[in-house]
This record gives sequence, structure tokens and C-alpha cells, in this order.
Amino acid sequence: MGDLALEPQLSGTVKLYDIDYAAAQHNAAIGNRLTSREEVPGKWTYEAVETCEEALTGADVVVLSILPGTFQHMAVDVHLPEEYGIYQPVGDTTGPGGIFRALRTIPVYRELAETIQAHAPHAWVLNYTNPMTWCVRAMTKAFPAINIVGCCHGVQESFELLGAMLADAGTADVDISKIRANILGVNHFTWISQATYEDVDLFPLYRGFANRYAEQGYRTDGATDEDKDNPFVSANRVQFDLFRRFGVIPACGDRHIVEFLPRTWYLRDPQTVRRWKFALTTVDLRMKRQQQLREKSERLRSGREEVAMERSGEQIVAMIKALAGLEAIVTNVNVPNRGQMEGVPYGAVVETNALISRDSVRPVMSGRLPDDLHEHVLKHVLKHESVLQAAWTQDRRLALNAFLHDPLVLLEPDEGERLFDRMSQLNGVVW
Amino acid sequence: MGDLALEPQLSGTVKLYDIDYAAAQHNAAIGNRLTSREEVPGKWTYEAVETCEEALTGADVVVLSILPGTFQHMAVDVHLPEEYGIYQPVGDTTGPGGIFRALRTIPVYRELAETIQAHAPHAWVLNYTNPMTWCVRAMTKAFPAINIVGCCHGVQESFELLGAMLADAGTADVDISKIRANILGVNHFTWISQATYEDVDLFPLYRGFANRYAEQGYRTDGATDEDKDNPFVSANRVQFDLFRRFGVIPACGDRHIVEFLPRTWYLRDPQTVRRWKFALTTVDLRMKRQQQLREKSERLRSGREEVAMERSGEQIVAMIKALAGLEAIVTNVNVPNRGQMEGVPYGAVVETNALISRDSVRPVMSGRLPDDLHEHVLKHVLKHESVLQAAWTQDRRLALNAFLHDPLVLLEPDEGERLFDRMSQLNGVVW
Amino acid sequence: MGDLALEPQLSGTVKLYDIDYAAAQHNAAIGNRLTSREEVPGKWTYEAVETCEEALTGADVVVLSILPGTFQHMAVDVHLPEEYGIYQPVGDTTGPGGIFRALRTIPVYRELAETIQAHAPHAWVLNYTNPMTWCVRAMTKAFPAINIVGCCHGVQESFELLGAMLADAGTADVDISKIRANILGVNHFTWISQATYEDVDLFPLYRGFANRYAEQGYRTDGATDEDKDNPFVSANRVQFDLFRRFGVIPACGDRHIVEFLPRTWYLRDPQTVRRWKFALTTVDLRMKRQQQLREKSERLRSGREEVAMERSGEQIVAMIKALAGLEAIVTNVNVPNRGQMEGVPYGAVVETNALISRDSVRPVMSGRLPDDLHEHVLKHVLKHESVLQAAWTQDRRLALNAFLHDPLVLLEPDEGERLFDRMSQLNGVVW
Amino acid sequence: MGDLALEPQLSGTVKLYDIDYAAAQHNAAIGNRLTSREEVPGKWTYEAVETCEEALTGADVVVLSILPGTFQHMAVDVHLPEEYGIYQPVGDTTGPGGIFRALRTIPVYRELAETIQAHAPHAWVLNYTNPMTWCVRAMTKAFPAINIVGCCHGVQESFELLGAMLADAGTADVDISKIRANILGVNHFTWISQATYEDVDLFPLYRGFANRYAEQGYRTDGATDEDKDNPFVSANRVQFDLFRRFGVIPACGDRHIVEFLPRTWYLRDPQTVRRWKFALTTVDLRMKRQQQLREKSERLRSGREEVAMERSGEQIVAMIKALAGLEAIVTNVNVPNRGQMEGVPYGAVVETNALISRDSVRPVMSGRLPDDLHEHVLKHVLKHESVLQAAWTQDRRLALNAFLHDPLVLLEPDEGERLFDRMSQLNGVVW
Repeated sequence: MGDLALEPQLSGTVKLYDIDYAAAQHNAAIGNRLTSREEVPGKWTYEAVETCEEALTGADVVVLSILPGTFQHMAVDVHLPEEYGIYQPVGDTTGPGGIFRALRTIPVYRELAETIQAHAPHAWVLNYTNPMTWCVRAMTKAFPAINIVGCCHGVQESFELLGAMLADAGTADVDISKIRANILGVNHFTWISQATYEDVDLFPLYRGFANRYAEQGYRTDGATDEDKDNPFVSANRVQFDLFRRFGVIPACGDRHIVEFLPRTWYLRDPQTVRRWKFALTTVDLRMKRQQQLREKSERLRSGREEVAMERSGEQIVAMIKALAGLEAIVTNVNVPNRGQMEGVPYGAVVETNALISRDSVRPVMSGRLPDDLHEHVLKHVLKHESVLQAAWTQDRRLALNAFLHDPLVLLEPDEGERLFDRMSQLNGVVW
Repeated sequence: MGDLALEPQLSGTVKLYDIDYAAAQHNAAIGNRLTSREEVPGKWTYEAVETCEEALTGADVVVLSILPGTFQHMAVDVHLPEEYGIYQPVGDTTGPGGIFRALRTIPVYRELAETIQAHAPHAWVLNYTNPMTWCVRAMTKAFPAINIVGCCHGVQESFELLGAMLADAGTADVDISKIRANILGVNHFTWISQATYEDVDLFPLYRGFANRYAEQGYRTDGATDEDKDNPFVSANRVQFDLFRRFGVIPACGDRHIVEFLPRTWYLRDPQTVRRWKFALTTVDLRMKRQQQLREKSERLRSGREEVAMERSGEQIVAMIKALAGLEAIVTNVNVPNRGQMEGVPYGAVVETNALISRDSVRPVMSGRLPDDLHEHVLKHVLKHESVLQAAWTQDRRLALNAFLHDPLVLLEPDEGERLFDRMSQLNGVVW
Repeated sequence: MGDLALEPQLSGTVKLYDIDYAAAQHNAAIGNRLTSREEVPGKWTYEAVETCEEALTGADVVVLSILPGTFQHMAVDVHLPEEYGIYQPVGDTTGPGGIFRALRTIPVYRELAETIQAHAPHAWVLNYTNPMTWCVRAMTKAFPAINIVGCCHGVQESFELLGAMLADAGTADVDISKIRANILGVNHFTWISQATYEDVDLFPLYRGFANRYAEQGYRTDGATDEDKDNPFVSANRVQFDLFRRFGVIPACGDRHIVEFLPRTWYLRDPQTVRRWKFALTTVDLRMKRQQQLREKSERLRSGREEVAMERSGEQIVAMIKALAGLEAIVTNVNVPNRGQMEGVPYGAVVETNALISRDSVRPVMSGRLPDDLHEHVLKHVLKHESVLQAAWTQDRRLALNAFLHDPLVLLEPDEGERLFDRMSQLNGVVW
Repeated sequence: MGDLALEPQLSGTVKLYDIDYAAAQHNAAIGNRLTSREEVPGKWTYEAVETCEEALTGADVVVLSILPGTFQHMAVDVHLPEEYGIYQPVGDTTGPGGIFRALRTIPVYRELAETIQAHAPHAWVLNYTNPMTWCVRAMTKAFPAINIVGCCHGVQESFELLGAMLADAGTADVDISKIRANILGVNHFTWISQATYEDVDLFPLYRGFANRYAEQGYRTDGATDEDKDNPFVSANRVQFDLFRRFGVIPACGDRHIVEFLPRTWYLRDPQTVRRWKFALTTVDLRMKRQQQLREKSERLRSGREEVAMERSGEQIVAMIKALAGLEAIVTNVNVPNRGQMEGVPYGAVVETNALISRDSVRPVMSGRLPDDLHEHVLKHVLKHESVLQAAWTQDRRLALNAFLHDPLVLLEPDEGERLFDRMSQLNGVVW
């Protein structure tokens, strides 16, 4: 809402649909209050609607951001595997937690795709729900011609580290919007194979930076090594280590990237995690955060607090402007592979740059990862397909085998099967 | 030179290599005279060199623009086939003329590739020589890691017709640099599958335009239907006709496009050509033009005339700026297919948009042509490979068969073979 | 029926379904009379059924052999194009005749596929209907998991010519079942890229043979050059000519192969056809033949004539035995490409060898045609897809464009469109 | 030699080349003694030669069977990783042992390929050296047109288990040469996706068999559970377990297959190995066996023992007969993928069936493994490429990363690097 409010070239109606209608009304009130402020250049009408169909009908752009399941499910995703020695810093993208979140989410997205096909087949669908890859893949499987784009600020955040690196190297007035990078990978396991700032190649700089801060890390989050209560911090040590191993720059935070590698690498146990200077999320903490957000939201609705007039860093408004024809931009998106990432089967959802212009999202040919890293990425791509297929056809064996093969699992098959079955029961994913 | 002179952000040394050293010296004199003018912002030093190696050593950018063979060869290319009923408006890209020009050029480019590999392996090679597709393909076959980009203003010219269309439809102050189009095809047989001007979809506009001017044509060259002496004009009738047949917008002039279609379509005989309101080049006329250019060049060298300070419309300076990291641009290039054009074998040279930034040319995924048009394009793609292979291995039968299958040839095989043999003899392409 | 009767290892029930129920009853009577003969080893029960569903239910093998449309349609297919200078020796596979036969047949096969999917989804479907490629492609598009195999004796017939060649070269007691050949292409435009007889490479032999008989031809049909009333004969001159041009052995008769090449090659006019020593079918003659077959059939039914106890040369019984697990064979089949023929898009129907064993048809990797010949084949593959797509979506423009691009058409577009429209009207294919 | 001696249809000269010339002479003596026996139908002349070039010149068939490195190297391959908790039952195909054996072997095969290209470019090269996949891949990378076929009896051995199963189920007089199976995978990690015996589908039978013997196992090697001294035995329990997990039949022995799976599955520790009833090879034992073979060989040479007239079970003579044109056979081979195995990159060496006839080896289209199993196989395919590339370019980092990603390694990266470096030193593979 803040980003829309700040954009003078766009206006229109935002229909808010939520399975909790009262929440949609609540948010509409916040939005309309914002629009009514005189200093706000972007004027939008917010309208809560009672059905998904109503929200979709006539839409040019559809924004999806949901949480299938509850915090109780999330606690199962993240904490039950700990009993088996499996530690997950996030647990929403891959690993046991990500797989079960996917198994809950895929049927919801499949149905949503059919609703969009029926009511807004030509709309641009911007997805913000995780697990990103499975959400986009499920939609495109159900409705192949859908105009879906998965958007994630993970890559943008990695540009902040590059910006800090430039400043650390003495560049004055770094403007990170001038960083150009070639992106490739899957969401939350994305990589930069080429990066420049004006006429400067950032790779030699990054090499020095990674070597210099390999041990102590380099923080952009203002935290300290002692800051143990905040699970969202990291000192970027894993990124530096991986760059030194593979020669390409990680384009996502440590907490996400470690989940894609064998758990013997950076997640052997909580001590290993501390040594690498990142943290494990607890679901308790997520619940506390949500409570705080709810309270803030109530203050915004009632007018006790005003929506701050500052940009969020998300690319969504820039993307809508580009799709409307007001400019052409290049940014990273999650869409099915048609060749933009070499060595990955067609149809699998990958994250690369795309050229976005009026009614058009065209990926940029982004090449291929180094062979040794490609191995790690492709393993996940194949797992994405297996889990999707398992959810589609309710094939327990296929889901179990994909689970057992996840690099965070690595249990004896029978032990892994027991964990799988317990998670299935608690998630209500029983076929 | 004019474009370089007008660009304030670049400067450097241009080494001119020509098999006629005196010509290189002559051109260096023109360039240095231009640089010496006070009002010129782009300061370059021009230097004639005696060997190709000297020109290449240390180069960041290599620009290739040569004519393998003589006007006598070109007369064979264009006019000998007329004895067999084959009329070619250009004769340098495809058809009997294009194939023999390719057979002359491929060995030259193969050798050139090896020289570049030895002396400037990391340079960006901008090719302007025709036949474009074969030149780029030969280079990449000889030296797969070469950074070659084939540049052609054909597509840019088609934007002028779109600009005229916008003006014709009442748009004020059309700025054709704001036209965004998705390009795909092979050089001189390129197509626009999506085009917008700000927030306007140009396809409905073009449909009306093509229907309205289907019969009389619409000229942007200032010529008239009676203007019979200038073979470079056309009324764009073929473009309108093809749009009506295939539903995508041709992105090249009539004279080029007709050469890719069966000669029964628009080239049956000179009367048919006149009816479609384009013209057949004569080599006589090309020779006259060359003479005029030589005279002008002498005036420029001697100072009797000044290089005009106006942009040529070529993208070359914008491309060099982008490669240097000064901006990022999207423009059409000819490079080997890696998936940017669907349905075309990898390695074949295609023309699509690319994102060009510091030391980087990344094609944009450009999709697939309609199936019925794809058939026509793919036939040429396969011929490109056959002719290349024939030239590479000096395989007469393969070259002959590719020649016989060209849609401009369509002779009885024995008759076609006689034409082939006569052209071979006169071109000195005898294996 | 004769082949089934001669096979001692198989028995069962044949359900005969015909849109003319009386004809099915008639044929059942012939079949049962044959079974009742004491000397017949293969005992089958023939049963006429009134619905397709009845025929399919419980079937292990389904044999399809129909003629969509009438002889009047066929006369349009073959003879109307003659008014435009287009001569077709067969007119059922490609060219104007083949395309319109496809447009009539595809909807029938699409519906049939759905019936098979509903009533015999696991049966092996052996298709004998033409146009073969389009029939198999339509079925697999409608029902991708169908077990369809397109069977054609065209290739087997070409083995007879190889056998004659061996005899001509002095080989005693040639057993053509010992010829092994690698087959690739599309139905009726198939090629042999490797052929052996025991330890002998047949290519050098064929080269001598083709050179020796290039002018006069070599007949295996017992006809003479003066034999003008029989349109099914040929002296194989085109095969010899094409071998000399492309270096691979044609695996289909002249009358079929010429239809895939530009009509300027062997079909310019009836004189050209006579010079190449093959013939143009007339539909009159086909009607006469059908009348004779009807009379013979009546004699067989009534017992005035007995079914001759000799093998037909078709592979159908060998194929059924292999599918039942009684042996494993290698023979040529028409199935969707999954890589068995290089350079052809996946899904397109190609003809290559396959290994056939119990419940299994696995194509053999058959490689790639020479580039110059591949160009000709691929053009037809793309046309197959365009015409199929056109019939599927009733897209007149797509069908017209595919028609105009057929190498037998080669008319000015407007003239071609007039022929297309007349054929559409007379075929009742009007969208 | 025994197999050649038993084959009446073949004869010729076998040139024996060994880096130990005396050994070649020794073997030639054995061979010639065998030929001289009257009852031997297959008469061959054995000739020891001093250079590889001499052996190759004029060869129709080249058989490769070497051991690059020594038993000391093999001890490093197999036993050093045990210090890190990595247990390998064979250690010659994959895992730390296989990777280092590959790093030793690839340069040897690269050089050998060049020698073959120079001296016997058209010969059929039958490879028996391990690691099979890397040997074949190295040869084809160095000399793409080479006619190499990797032959392994692993799959044939799995047919013996199927034969035992048939007998166990009551089938009389089982003839395992009548088993037909569709094979796919990589060498030593191959699978059967369809198997029949005459008209019987073997899958339902195998399901019952695997369930029945899941716990106790089923031995075909005559060993008992107490038989601890023989490391080459197994009770096939892993095969049964994997069939139950993935639904396809393993086509290789337990000892090989377990090495391709995460070591947490069946190789956690020696107890786990015993529970699964297979064994870990010791290099000591291999040395003892070699000593015994040497002694036997000496007895054969001196005439104190005669070569037994029984077939070895290897397919080599059948393959040579087929390549000579005496028959056509279908058997499993290791050759580069051209599409015969779906989902695997072209060029990677896979094991599937092929149709073998005169001068021709054509893989049979073998389809795709179930997605969950495909994940496991593809991981190794990618590793094959990485290790090959590393050996080719002497790229330590690439080799290390491939090593760290092997499912038998799964160490913390720094610990894994220490193992890698120790193995490198001891193998003399230091770049």
C-alpha cells in the first residue's frame, strides 16, 4: 500500500480478498485512509470483497500472498525434524518443512489456478507466497497459459551486500540501483554469475571481500555475534564460503542457502550453525512477530499510527508500471524455464532476470551454472517435480522418496519414513 | 565516424585495416580531420595499420565490414540466375546470389576467426558484413567462444514504418525510440510478434494500416510509383500482405523479405515485382553508387566537404557504450541460438533482442513464430547449416542440394545443377 | 484373414465393425468359412458388431483401416489440382490431395481416439489408414498414452528391390528376410541409411545398381514401359536418381516419394512423369478396382472362390505374435518421435525401426538423415503439425498457409487460395 | 579365449598388447595352445605385440581391459575413506574410490583414444575396463566418432536372479536367454522397467518374490549368511528393498548398487552392511585372488591345466558375431546418450539395450526411470561430467566439489577436503 501510495503514475481499484473477510475490511480501511491523505500522490480505492471470483473479475493484476496452514503446522515443519537431527533456519522453501508446506499449498494453488482461468485468464498474476517455486509450478501445471510471475526480494537484498562491499572498498555514494547482475538458480538458491557497477567488474572486488571477511563475516543487518534473540540475522559467512568454493556469488541470505546443501555442510547441529554465524528460526518467535504486526495494523486502521511514506524495497510497483507500458525494466522473476537457464528441464520454475514491458515478461538468457554447483541446483529442480507430481496424483510413495532424497534429510530410509509419516499425520496430508 | 564523433562519453583509438592499405590511410585521414574539429565531442585517433594482427592486438571492440569478391562476382550472383527466370531484388542474403556470396565469404571468415582467436580472443566482434547469418555462424563454428554480435539496421528501419503508422493514426510527436517490439527470425527475414508504443498495443493499429494500404502501399522513402530508376525503394505492400497472411509484422523491407519465400509468390517475373511496388537491384547501379561514394570520400579527405554531424541510425555506438558499462540497452542482434528462439536448433544464428550491458550480450527469450511462418524460417535455418557445412568440407553435392532446395531456385534438378555449375565457375568456387 | 489363418500359434475372436453393418457381416461370413476349412491352422471366430464400443471392449489388439470420405472426394483430391498444373501420382499422403484427406480424417481419428480411451485404453492399436502420419498424430494428440503403431508395407516393398538387386548381382537364393536396414523418415518418404545382407554391405552394390539402371530403370513389377493402363507401376528411376543425389536409399516407391519433393522436380507435367517412368493414378481406375474387389469378396462369401492360403507380405501377424510375447522382432513402425530420429521435434510421427516384444514397442535410435535431405523431410514434419493444429482448432488461415507452402503447390498465393477454397467446398471442410 | 574357442563361425588373429610384454607372450602361449587342441572349433592365432600401434593396426575389433594404477592405489581408494566413516563394498565405480580410479584412468583413456583414432579409427572398441562410464565418456570426448561400446555382465547376472525366481515360482526348465528386459541407467546402477519371459510379465512375480524374501534374502551364489570370508556374495536384500521403494527391478548386484545411494541408507557402518547381508571387499583379498589367478595362468601356459571348454557368460563373442553380420542381437551396452534414456543430457554415457547388427550398434529407446529414482541416477550423471571435465582440464576445485557432493562422501566440506587431498597425494593426482 505504501509503495502504491508513493507512485504518481498509477491509480485504480484494489479488491482485497481474504478467507477472513473481516481482515480484508480492516485492510481496506487502512488503504482508504492512506489514499485520503493529501500528500499521497498515488490514489487507490480499496474494496474488501467476499469471494475470490469477485476479486478476480476484471482484474489486470492479481497479487497472491497467503499462508496455507497454521503456525501449528509451521511448528511441525520446523521443529519435528529436529528430533531427527535436522535443523532448519527457515523451513518454508525446501527440506522437510518446505516439502510439507508444498504438500499443503499445491492443492490450494491448483484450485486457485482454475479460478483465475475462469475469471481473469489474461491478468498478470504476481505471486509472493512461499514455497515460491512450487506455487508457480502448480499454477502453470494447472493452467499453462497463465501469466504468472513469482516475485521475491531475496536477490534485491543480496544487492545490498554488494553495495556495502562497494562502500567498504571506497566507492562514494553507492547507488545499488546501478548494480547489474546476471541471476540464475531456483528461488532462495539463486546465484550471480556476472555483476557490474557502472564500468566496474564486481567479481575481483567480491573475491577480496569474501577472503577478507571469511572468518569474521560481514554484517549489513546491524546485529552482533552476540545477538542471539533475533533469528533473522546472519554474518554472510556461508555466502563467502560458497563463493570461494564455486566461484559465483550467492544471491540469497545464508539462512535460505544452507537449506539446499547436504545438512552435513552447515547444519550439522546448533553449534555448527553458531560457528557459521547465522540462526535458526523458532516458530514461537514468528508468532510473537505476527502478534506485533496485528497490533500495528490495528493502530493503522484506527488512525493511531500513519502508514509511513517510504518504499518497501519490493519491485511490485515497478513491475506493474512496466506491465502497463510506462517503462521497461529488467529484474529477477520466477517463471517456468523455456531455456533461460541451461541444463534445467523445460517447465521447471527457475529464477533469472527478465525484460518486463507492456503486457510482456520475457526472461533473459542467463546461461548455466558451473557444473559442480549445477549438480546441487538440479537435484532440487528434480525434487520440485517429484513433489508436485506426488501432490497432484496423491502418490505417497513418490512424496516419500523425494523426501528421503532431500539433502537435509539423509536418514536411513526406515527412520526417514517414520518422520515422513508423523509429519503427514500432523499436516493432515494423508493419502 | 560520425556517430563516434557525436558521442561525448567515449574516446580511444581506431585502427583501420583494409586489404587496400591506401584506403585505410585515406579513411584515417578523414577520421583524424573530423576529430580535429573543435565542435566534435567524441575524440578518436584513427590509425591505418598494415596487418590484421596489428589491428586486432589490444582491441576491445572489433568491427567487421567487408565485401568478399568483386562487383563482377555480384553481377553473377544477381544477374546470371535471371537467365533461368530467377529474379532477386538484392541477392546478397539468400537465394542463388546469397548462397554464392556465402560460399565466397565463409572461408574468409573462418580464417578471420582464427586470427581473432589468436590476437583478440576477448574482444567484442561487431559484424556488419553480409550474408550476416553465415558470417556469424562461420565465426562461431571456427571459434565457439568468440564474442561476436551481428548488427543490422534492418529492424530499426521497420520501426520507421511503425512510426509513420502512428503519425498516420494521429499520434503527435512520435518518438520511435519508445517503440518496444519483440523480434525474432533470421537476418533480413525477421518478424515482430509484439509491439507497443508507451501503453498502446500496435497490433490493432497495424491491422487497420495494412488493410487500408494493402493495394496502394505506403511509402516512407519519398519515392513514387513512377520512380523506376531507384532500385532501393518500395511501397511496403509485401509487408502488408504478409502481415495479413501470418498475423505478425515483418521487420525488414520488402526487397529482402520476398527473397525468402517461394519465387512463385512475389518474384515470378518483373511484372509481378512492379505490381508489388518494389524493385530489382542492378549491379550497374551499385557500381555507380560506389563511384559516387568514392568521390565523396575523396572530398571528405581533402577537406572540400565536411563529415555531417548527424547520427546514422546504426546502433553501433550505443552498443559499444553498453558493452563498456555506461548503460544497459535492449536491441536486436544476430547470435547463435541457445533457446532464445523456440523451435530452431541450437547453434543456428537467429536475430532477436538482447540485453546488452558491461561485457555482456544476453538474448531475450523471444518465443516462437506462428507454425505456418516458422516453416518458412526453419527451411532457411537448415539451409544455412547445409551451406556452411558444404563450404567447411568443400562438399559440392551438399552445396548443390542446398542450392536446389532454395525457394528461389525451384528448377528441375538438372537445370538447377547447370546454373549451379556456371555460378561455381564464375565465382571460382570449384571443389 | 489369410495371414491369421496361416499362423498356428494364435487364435481368438475378431470383432468386425464397419459403418456399413452388412459389410461387416459379409466379411465375418468369409472369415468363418475360412476358419472352418480343415487345412487352416489358425482358428479364429469372426463376429460382426453393430457399434464401435462393442468391437473395442475387451480387445487386446485393434486394427484400423478406413477410408474417410468417398471416391468423389478422392477425385477432388487428385484431379482438381490438375487444373492448376499440379499432378499427383497418389494424392493420399501429402500435397493438396493428402492435406484434404487429412482434414477429412483428423476429426474422425480424434473421436475414435476418445472411444478407444474409454473402451480399450490398454489395447495395441495397429493403424493401416492413410494418411498414416496424420492418423497416428491425431490419435496421440487426443490420447497421449495410447499404444498406437502405424504399420505400412512400403518399406518392406523396397526390400524386394534390394532382393532383386542382390539376384541381379549374382547372389543365389536371396532370402529378403535376411536384409537388415536402418530406416528413417516419415511414412512414404522413408530412407535407408545402412543396409546389409548377411555380412555384405548393400550400399556399394546399390551404387552400381543405381548407376547401371539410372536411365532405363529396373522393374520388379513385371510391367513394361509401354504398359500405360496400370497406374501402380514404376521403373524405380526416381529412387535411383535420389540415391545418386543424396547418398541414401529411398525406402518407398517412386509414386509416393515424388510427391514430397518440389513439383518442378519429377511432376512438372505428364511428359515429365512418363520420362521418369512412373504413372499418375486416376480415380476412375480406383473405382474399377474397388468394383472388382467387391465381386471377388462376394465370391469368397458365397463359397464360389476360396481364400488363397498365401501370406500377404504385411507384418501384422508377426507384430501381434511379438506383442503377445511369442517372439521379439525388429520392424519399421510409425510412432511419435521421442528421439529415435534426430533433428525432428518430439511428438511428430516418424517411421523408423522398433524392437517389438511382449506388450512393448521400443523404437531403435535411427540417427539423422544427411542435412540436405533432412531439409526436405523436416518441411513435411512441420506441415504435419500445422495441418493437424488447423484441423484441431478449425483454423482456416493456418490450413491455407500450410497448403500454400506444400512443395506440390507452389502457386501464387492468391491462386493457391482459390484452389484451397474450391477443395474446401467440395470436401465439406469449411470453417 | 574360451568363448572364442567355442565359436565355430569366427576365426582370425588376436594381437595381445600389455604394458608387461612378457605377460602378453604368456597369454599368447595359452591361447595358441588352446587353438592347437583338436576339439576346439574356433581357431585363432594369438600374437603378442610390443606396441599398442601394432596391436591396433588393421584391427576390426579392439578389446580393452586394463587396470590403471596398482593394488596399492586400490587400497587407498577403498580403505582410506573408512577412516572417515565411508565404507565401500567395491570402490571401483563411484564414491571416493571410483572417483579417484576415474582420475587415474581418464588420462590413460584420452591418450588411448588418440592412438585408436590414428591407427584403427573404424574398429569397434569393446571396453571392459572400470570405471566403465568414465572410460567410455573419455574416449568419446577425445574422439567423438569412435565406435566404442562398453560391455558389462552385471545386467546378465541379474537375469540369473530372475531365472531363479521363475524356478522358485515353479517354472520348469527356465532358459534365461528367453528373458527380455528393458534396461536403463548407468553402469552398475541399472534398472529393469519391463521384463517378460515368453508371454509372462515378470513384474507381478518379482513383487511376490521380493516381499517373500525381503528379510531373509535369496541367494543364488550358494553362500550362507555365515560365509564371512567371501566379500563377493550377497543375499540380494538391497535389490528387494529398492524394488519395493521404487517399483523397478535393480539390474545389478547389491554391492554395486548401494554405492550410488546416500551412505546413510545401506552403508552407515559395517553392522548395517551385515544386516543387509552383503559384504565389503578388502584389497587384501583381491591381491590373494590375483595371486591365485596368476598361478592358474601359469598352469594353463605350461600345460599342467587345460582351459575349460565352457562359456564365460560374457556377451563378447555374440557381439563380435553380430558386428560381423552373422546375426542381429539385442543386448545391454554403455554408449553416449542420444535420447535412448530420457531426461539424461546427450553425450552422457548410459546403459540401455541396443540392437547390434553388421557394423552397427543402435540403442533402443528405453524411456525414463520413475522420477524419484531418476533423481538418484541424474546426480551421478552430472558427477560423471564434472569429474571428467576436472580430469580433462586438471581443475582441482571442480574435482573436489564433485567429490564432496558424492552421496558416499557427505562430510563437512573441510573434512571432505582433507580426505580428498590425502587421496590425491597417494594417487599421484596432484594438479
